[in-house]
Amino acid sequence: MYMLCCDLEGVLVPEVWINVARWTGIDELKLTTRDIVDYNALMKRRLEILKQHGLTINDIQKVISLLELMPGALDFINWLHGRVQMVVVSDTFREFADPLLEKIGWPVLFCHHLTIDKDGNITDFNLRQTEAKKKVVEALQNLNFKVIAIGDSYNDITMLRQAEHGILYRPPQNVIDDNQDIKVVASYSQLKHLVSEILETNSL
Amino acid sequence: MYMLCCDLEGVLVPEVWINVARWTGIDELKLTTRDIVDYNALMKRRLEILKQHGLTINDIQKVISLLELMPGALDFINWLHGRVQMVVVSDTFREFADPLLEKIGWPVLFCHHLTIDKDGNITDFNLRQTEAKKKVVEALQNLNFKVIAIGDSYNDITMLRQAEHGILYRPPQNVIDDNQDIKVVASYSQLKHLVSEILETNSL
Repeated sequence: MYMLCCDLEGVLVPEVWINVARWTGIDELKLTTRDIVDYNALMKRRLEILKQHGLTINDIQKVISLLELMPGALDFINWLHGRVQMVVVSDTFREFADPLLEKIGWPVLFCHHLTIDKDGNITDFNLRQTEAKKKVVEALQNLNFKVIAIGDSYNDITMLRQAEHGILYRPPQNVIDDNQDIKVVASYSQLKHLVSEILETNSL
Repeated sequence: MYMLCCDLEGVLVPEVWINVARWTGIDELKLTTRDIVDYNALMKRRLEILKQHGLTINDIQKVISLLELMPGALDFINWLHGRVQMVVVSDTFREFADPLLEKIGWPVLFCHHLTIDKDGNITDFNLRQTEAKKKVVEALQNLNFKVIAIGDSYNDITMLRQAEHGILYRPPQNVIDDNQDIKVVASYSQLKHLVSEILETNSL
């Protein structure tokens, strides 16, 4: 049997931090792992900025609740039902994701979580485990699933390589250049076509 | 973080084979693991009976599509959203489950699958792995989740014992008698109360 592991931000929904930066007007929150390579250092900086500006989890959740899904994302998810099961695999945080998950029908999400004090201040972040995305694929393979994995960025590559079928969905050019052996698709209709092809040419 | 592993038949939906027996009028399909202890022998007998009567996957799916959820099941599932994530863990087959999953919003299902020929005859059944339910709990624990598991019968016991919190939902008296150390609940409202209690007394 197949299971589809799908990244969240950049594939089904827009990038959360870029939109938090846009809505709050705090340009420094636009920083990504392309600017600060060390993810832990980047997250620490983000939490410092939130603290400086007195922004709580409620403010962030408000911004996230205003985000629209990528056009076509809901249709893609509904198309999967009855064809192949999907789990969402993301480096986001549980507390950020709920407003987004609600919009796509509450799929299961494998991600991290935050530490929040009684006033709603985000005091720390907790990675569920190292190499979290890849390990979800491995866990499913140990349960005798074959995995189709979809992602768009550097933090998806080990997951895509671990899966039986890894697909890059609208990645930036540098991710394509650095991973020329991984299939790239540019639209949900191409993605549907490729997923159909994989499911049809491989038995349950 | 917590993940809830919920059995399907007997907890969220009625027993499939008992209803297939009822709708087809074939009494022998009422046989369960209480009559034939060896699950493989039981499934082989069931498939023989379907063959004798010329019943295909389409007939079975039609019966299943007529089944109603347990009263309160959908409300329970919706109540979980945003509180704790749920996956469904069942010894049913992929091809039986789809009409039921649609009614409860397509949760992820860990189960087995059938071999079906081009005419829709069920020619074989394929267990995803041995001790399939317990192994889902172990996989989630390896991904650093704590697990609340809910089931109603003997085939759930190893899953319930592997989980951090195992709960029997309206089990038959013999299952209660044989597992007196496992908590028993008799309604979804009791289940909600117990799940809330677990989530509140244990941090993320």
